[in-house]
Amino acid sequence: MTKLWGGRFQKSAEQWVDEFGASIGFDQALVMEDLDGSIAHVKMLGACHILPQEDVQQILGGLEQLKKLAADNALQFLVANEDIHLNLEKMLIDLIGPVGGKLHTGRSRNDQVATDMHLFLKNRVNEIIELIELFQQTLVTQAEAHVETLAPGYTHLQRAQPISFAHHLMAYFWMLDRDKDRFKDSMKRIDISPLGAGALAGTTFPIDRKLSAEYLGFSSVYANSMDAVSDRDFIVEFLSNSSMLMAHLSRFAEEIILWSSSEFNFIELDDSFSTGSSIMPQKKNPDMAELIRGKTGRVYGNLMGLLTVIKGLPLTYNKDMQEDKEGMFDTVHTIVGSLKIFEGMVRTMTVHTERLHDTVHQDFSNATELADYLAAKGLPFREAHEVTGKLVFLCIQRGYFLLDLPLEDLQEASSLIESDIYDVLSPLAAVKRRNSLGGTGFEQVVIQIEEAKKRLV
Amino acid sequence: MTKLWGGRFQKSAEQWVDEFGASIGFDQALVMEDLDGSIAHVKMLGACHILPQEDVQQILGGLEQLKKLAADNALQFLVANEDIHLNLEKMLIDLIGPVGGKLHTGRSRNDQVATDMHLFLKNRVNEIIELIELFQQTLVTQAEAHVETLAPGYTHLQRAQPISFAHHLMAYFWMLDRDKDRFKDSMKRIDISPLGAGALAGTTFPIDRKLSAEYLGFSSVYANSMDAVSDRDFIVEFLSNSSMLMAHLSRFAEEIILWSSSEFNFIELDDSFSTGSSIMPQKKNPDMAELIRGKTGRVYGNLMGLLTVIKGLPLTYNKDMQEDKEGMFDTVHTIVGSLKIFEGMVRTMTVHTERLHDTVHQDFSNATELADYLAAKGLPFREAHEVTGKLVFLCIQRGYFLLDLPLEDLQEASSLIESDIYDVLSPLAAVKRRNSLGGTGFEQVVIQIEEAKKRLV
Amino acid sequence: MTKLWGGRFQKSAEQWVDEFGASIGFDQALVMEDLDGSIAHVKMLGACHILPQEDVQQILGGLEQLKKLAADNALQFLVANEDIHLNLEKMLIDLIGPVGGKLHTGRSRNDQVATDMHLFLKNRVNEIIELIELFQQTLVTQAEAHVETLAPGYTHLQRAQPISFAHHLMAYFWMLDRDKDRFKDSMKRIDISPLGAGALAGTTFPIDRKLSAEYLGFSSVYANSMDAVSDRDFIVEFLSNSSMLMAHLSRFAEEIILWSSSEFNFIELDDSFSTGSSIMPQKKNPDMAELIRGKTGRVYGNLMGLLTVIKGLPLTYNKDMQEDKEGMFDTVHTIVGSLKIFEGMVRTMTVHTERLHDTVHQDFSNATELADYLAAKGLPFREAHEVTGKLVFLCIQRGYFLLDLPLEDLQEASSLIESDIYDVLSPLAAVKRRNSLGGTGFEQVVIQIEEAKKRLV
Amino acid sequence: MTKLWGGRFQKSAEQWVDEFGASIGFDQALVMEDLDGSIAHVKMLGACHILPQEDVQQILGGLEQLKKLAADNALQFLVANEDIHLNLEKMLIDLIGPVGGKLHTGRSRNDQVATDMHLFLKNRVNEIIELIELFQQTLVTQAEAHVETLAPGYTHLQRAQPISFAHHLMAYFWMLDRDKDRFKDSMKRIDISPLGAGALAGTTFPIDRKLSAEYLGFSSVYANSMDAVSDRDFIVEFLSNSSMLMAHLSRFAEEIILWSSSEFNFIELDDSFSTGSSIMPQKKNPDMAELIRGKTGRVYGNLMGLLTVIKGLPLTYNKDMQEDKEGMFDTVHTIVGSLKIFEGMVRTMTVHTERLHDTVHQDFSNATELADYLAAKGLPFREAHEVTGKLVFLCIQRGYFLLDLPLEDLQEASSLIESDIYDVLSPLAAVKRRNSLGGTGFEQVVIQIEEAKKRLV
Repeated sequence: MTKLWGGRFQKSAEQWVDEFGASIGFDQALVMEDLDGSIAHVKMLGACHILPQEDVQQILGGLEQLKKLAADNALQFLVANEDIHLNLEKMLIDLIGPVGGKLHTGRSRNDQVATDMHLFLKNRVNEIIELIELFQQTLVTQAEAHVETLAPGYTHLQRAQPISFAHHLMAYFWMLDRDKDRFKDSMKRIDISPLGAGALAGTTFPIDRKLSAEYLGFSSVYANSMDAVSDRDFIVEFLSNSSMLMAHLSRFAEEIILWSSSEFNFIELDDSFSTGSSIMPQKKNPDMAELIRGKTGRVYGNLMGLLTVIKGLPLTYNKDMQEDKEGMFDTVHTIVGSLKIFEGMVRTMTVHTERLHDTVHQDFSNATELADYLAAKGLPFREAHEVTGKLVFLCIQRGYFLLDLPLEDLQEASSLIESDIYDVLSPLAAVKRRNSLGGTGFEQVVIQIEEAKKRLV
Repeated sequence: MTKLWGGRFQKSAEQWVDEFGASIGFDQALVMEDLDGSIAHVKMLGACHILPQEDVQQILGGLEQLKKLAADNALQFLVANEDIHLNLEKMLIDLIGPVGGKLHTGRSRNDQVATDMHLFLKNRVNEIIELIELFQQTLVTQAEAHVETLAPGYTHLQRAQPISFAHHLMAYFWMLDRDKDRFKDSMKRIDISPLGAGALAGTTFPIDRKLSAEYLGFSSVYANSMDAVSDRDFIVEFLSNSSMLMAHLSRFAEEIILWSSSEFNFIELDDSFSTGSSIMPQKKNPDMAELIRGKTGRVYGNLMGLLTVIKGLPLTYNKDMQEDKEGMFDTVHTIVGSLKIFEGMVRTMTVHTERLHDTVHQDFSNATELADYLAAKGLPFREAHEVTGKLVFLCIQRGYFLLDLPLEDLQEASSLIESDIYDVLSPLAAVKRRNSLGGTGFEQVVIQIEEAKKRLV
Repeated sequence: MTKLWGGRFQKSAEQWVDEFGASIGFDQALVMEDLDGSIAHVKMLGACHILPQEDVQQILGGLEQLKKLAADNALQFLVANEDIHLNLEKMLIDLIGPVGGKLHTGRSRNDQVATDMHLFLKNRVNEIIELIELFQQTLVTQAEAHVETLAPGYTHLQRAQPISFAHHLMAYFWMLDRDKDRFKDSMKRIDISPLGAGALAGTTFPIDRKLSAEYLGFSSVYANSMDAVSDRDFIVEFLSNSSMLMAHLSRFAEEIILWSSSEFNFIELDDSFSTGSSIMPQKKNPDMAELIRGKTGRVYGNLMGLLTVIKGLPLTYNKDMQEDKEGMFDTVHTIVGSLKIFEGMVRTMTVHTERLHDTVHQDFSNATELADYLAAKGLPFREAHEVTGKLVFLCIQRGYFLLDLPLEDLQEASSLIESDIYDVLSPLAAVKRRNSLGGTGFEQVVIQIEEAKKRLV
Repeated sequence: MTKLWGGRFQKSAEQWVDEFGASIGFDQALVMEDLDGSIAHVKMLGACHILPQEDVQQILGGLEQLKKLAADNALQFLVANEDIHLNLEKMLIDLIGPVGGKLHTGRSRNDQVATDMHLFLKNRVNEIIELIELFQQTLVTQAEAHVETLAPGYTHLQRAQPISFAHHLMAYFWMLDRDKDRFKDSMKRIDISPLGAGALAGTTFPIDRKLSAEYLGFSSVYANSMDAVSDRDFIVEFLSNSSMLMAHLSRFAEEIILWSSSEFNFIELDDSFSTGSSIMPQKKNPDMAELIRGKTGRVYGNLMGLLTVIKGLPLTYNKDMQEDKEGMFDTVHTIVGSLKIFEGMVRTMTVHTERLHDTVHQDFSNATELADYLAAKGLPFREAHEVTGKLVFLCIQRGYFLLDLPLEDLQEASSLIESDIYDVLSPLAAVKRRNSLGGTGFEQVVIQIEEAKKRLV
């Protein structure tokens, strides 16, 4: 068995353990938040006369210097210093001497890391909300261009009723709107300061938690110190909201992929959002839509991962909780990228309006109109359906669609049918007549878009 | 291979398919919601003059009769009629004749089932919010009784600092408070009417969607008919919120189980929430806590299940979406039961205050106090730590705790130590001194409890 | 808050707890396995002279009587008796008197329930293996009928290269074959007896575990009693294998749904596996394929659920483990139904061979052939690609496909092209030439099918 | 909204898309496998006379050079070249000129990447199997040292019956043994070559897939080219097996954490596998056990992620499948580290045998022995239980344990009790008497350990 330890596992047990336990490899993403948290903390220590102003100024000077270095990517993090907090503390002391050690007065790594996470997510969720709005804006723009573009509406991936293509696009507007709402609602539980909760029990120093929270722009503080250091709900909630968002994007991606197939051929993606082939210039793989659909799995997985971590975990801090970070970082990166790319993909896609127009004229999705027509003329529903069924069957045999049938054939099936039937059967009329609130009738779609715009102000 | 088909798989293909596709086995849980939805719909049809009042009255009479029968469990549902909607429609027609068929005017099963689900969840979530409050009330009551009960506070399941037992219990109050908030936030997205969206595109009848929504007590209506029939977000959000709640209960359950072990022995559960043994009367298995911890898996699984169902699903209705129900029903049942039982378990548990008191006197969780004492007297932090470490080590060798050390031993380690050290080292003093906002100091805990009570009004 | 308890939550705390904790509502599915386990156990007790033959005979008589009643669905299970084991024990004693109590000698509920689960799953997995084979047989039959049916092969849902439709179907054969292999491999870990492990530590009675295992048809016994009662691996493994199977079925279902759309129109499902519409006789919703695709979520959820349950669970039996059953029963039911229905759906579907044939003649998936042709004639790859790309572009401009281009146009692009190019470009030739092992060339497909048949003997 | 695009999102759409779509950031982990795959492929092309020997030799020379550079970490990968395959192809051509382009003859990226993954996982799974064996060996060593160490056996985290500590440790041996078996079984489905499947349909070149498979050490080849490029089962199976392994480690970790608590105090972890505190030298946080328990979530999440990716994915290659890699790499890294660290942790832990010994003498887990003693003397079971219950109750009132009761008290409860009862009640005797196969009796434990050793040869 020497081979095993001799080969790629040459490191000593100690090295293995250190690397396995260290978080600096990923929690360096919190560098700015950690420095901001320290700045607020030390300012509060000064204001509360826990540290003399001289010390405070020195420490602040050091922290600002570190921020500049961080902005320039000039900090060198070491696994030996385990995590972002110890790395920065060490750097601070190297920079300004032993006084740097006083920064940690009345604070513990437990409330410090929680503070970093809250700050990080608050910033990112605000950005995500902006990105959602940007995408919504693009959907509105595309919808406005396609209010009168007829398209088939599907159930069971079977054509069911003709619709306005704008109506279809706007369905995604509202999904995104709920996503935005959920992210906004979650802010209440993100925008809250754990700083000053100490290791778990609070501190004996006369700190002012509301003041440090204020410095950091937090709206409130945790009411219970044990809860403050144990709580990772806000991350789970973020992952849940992100999972829902990705579910929506995966649905839209599926449709983009279907519409781009040569069978559907409803749209053409812009070159920058698809990959081609030098040999088949007509070929465009909707790579980005596929990739985003695939990335849904990653975000679901991150959610399941964190839910598993916290299951059955006793209070308060346990090392298991170090596993809260990578899934969160990865999810932020994934949904930021997915939103940006999806927005661009939809903004730049070409809609094949003629193909869509032809499509709704080459199916039987207007059969309902015929039955309704007959019913409106007094024929019992069941009979109206029967007559319609027979006529559709006749068409199929002849390779016709309903609009192709001569009036005599129609009248043979039912004497109630008159020449106005051709207007009734036109997909355009069918769409227009669905004028109920929220329906696909053009009038309603225009109202809907106006309603949507109000949500974007 | 005949054995297979001959044995337990004797049914014909058709029967298999029918049973596999039918939802009546579980969607009968929606019987009241479906009838209420129909009542509102037909009243609206009357108000909008789509159906004559006579028909409306006949249909309403039938529906009310069905409600009475449903309340008496006197309805007989048939797999042959597939789902709750067709079952009830058939029953209505059997009851009042063909006029019953007019109920479905301007409605489709797609918006009908969505309406049922919204109604169902709206009612259940309100009940769940009440149950959470009940549990929170019980936590407050227990906390009030144990403000001055000392207990060990843990990190890494190692004793870290003494705390007020009330403080520990209150940590769960705040977790539940966030759960409640999330359920309340979700109500915006549950309390909205899809009725009138039709199959997917709206309807040609001059319906009034706001009116039927008002009859049903919904606060708003969906703005897009395709979204209205495709949206299952509100169920995913319910499952996410329930997963978080179960995660909290699983953490509390873990602690209840630990505390009930003979090693911890911090509490004793009431007989009604544990199972005993005729042969070992002292033995009490914390069955209910274990079971609730276990049921966390079921709720996580239901969430994962529905997220999987909607991944990559094109608009609008697809049969996959029938899979939205069982997980939701099961989750409602699980969290209602878990909340009720947990509340009773915590309300009736006996806290072993003496054992807890002894515990905090038999460990070194007061070592931090000694170091802080030395630091306050001017000894540099690092040296204060070193002195403390040596004294702890001395204790371990002698089988002592810090409070057992004679003053001379203490002073030999550091001349800064005086006789007031014994007060400082007492766990009681240690807890009291952690008087920062949200800390475990008794004063703070009392304030916290008052704050909590305001959340329950 | 009285409303809450007054309404649907009227039951006493005790009733709630009893019902919440009772498993008889679902573990009655184990009735036969429990009785078989008891029969083997008591026979072993007799053979080892632990119980006198007279007692053994009496108990066996009672157990056989219970089996008959169970087969006739004539047993009445009570929540008051908690689970299947206590229900049956009570019934046995009611039937044959106090001697029935001796059945439990040298056994505990912990090893008893584990035995039931192993027996249950062993039987079901064997049935599932048979069902997979049945489905594989159907795939072979359909494949044999379609070796020479040309069809488009896709990557990115874009047509890439023409293939044999049989080749596509056979891809699922091999996925199912791996599923079957995994279920077979898992049998080693299912087919093993925990009986005699007692509560956790074994028993003081001189039992013969190998003998009772032999009576039950188990191949081996657990080597460690603590492991025997704590192990639920075999269920997790079953759920993993089932998740993979469902993933495969969901992929096939997706294709069935695509192929059934009017855009693809590659197949038509039999009426018994789709739902129609009285008004649109041409319309067929692929309900069963959608439902199976949806049920993937349920099985994934069951897997996630049990993985969550066992995470962090200390040895040995904990009440959490009661949660192992419902997900397993539900998964068995789901995959048995899904396999049976999918087999029937594929067996009875009509393949639109003409439409498929036309399809491969109306795209540019033969562009690769042209490039290969040029490369074979010595043109560097990069140039061959360039020439091809230009010709495809020319076609698009003219609304042609490559086969429609006159020879002069081809030769203008490259003088290397000769009249044999039309043969090369034919999809039929393109398929035939892919004659590498496992490729889509007809010859290879025939060999592949023969190979497949050997796996079914 | 300029802020958004102006800030951290400055990159052009194109850059975003490129980076989002590129996999080189993580698939460079496949560098060696990709080069090995290419070497085998080009050797086969030579052997089949598809490429002239001269070209083959030149390409082989280049590939070997790249392997050396890769081993020295001297390759510079570029996002512009998208993935590992294109990066290496570009490097090869830079190195040896245009002839490098011929390497890709008769191969596609689709079969190439699948080959890489199979090679990668084959190597890693073999290492994992070795690591499991190493850990099993350590468990055997620890078990051998503790056959006669008495310890409490738990159900419901309540002491149930005394056991041999070795027996408890060996329970994990068998869990790991099943893990090992599952990884071994999976090898059949990993150790199979997709090389030569082309993009999806095979190739027109006269390649010899069995020969390239042989060069790579694969045992077999895929029978269907579409399956070969679409199959990711082997990765899902790996993630399932890894999830189960992590579940086992999480259970063991939970026990390590419990045992390390001051309440249990059964073991002490070595300094190198725990973190201490300068101020509390007695304090040892079982960080590694906690972290491994936490990492269970990550592996479950990776499994759920990939299951989600493949759900409903049509054949053959889709870009979604690029998401198969990171979760696999992360899982390999996680379980390799977890196994190595857990092994070291168990190998170096100190078992507090005295504390364990005392523990089993200070509870009522011997009550069963008393009841069995009375039953063996002819007292009906129910009465034996009743007598025992009364005596236990008596003890509790007096603060005694059963062994502390004087004979007269015992005999007053039942005249059947004689002085040999004290031997019967001793935990040592109780353990020894559980001598059924697989039981905790020392004799059986020794046999079990011997059996285990045979599994390690």
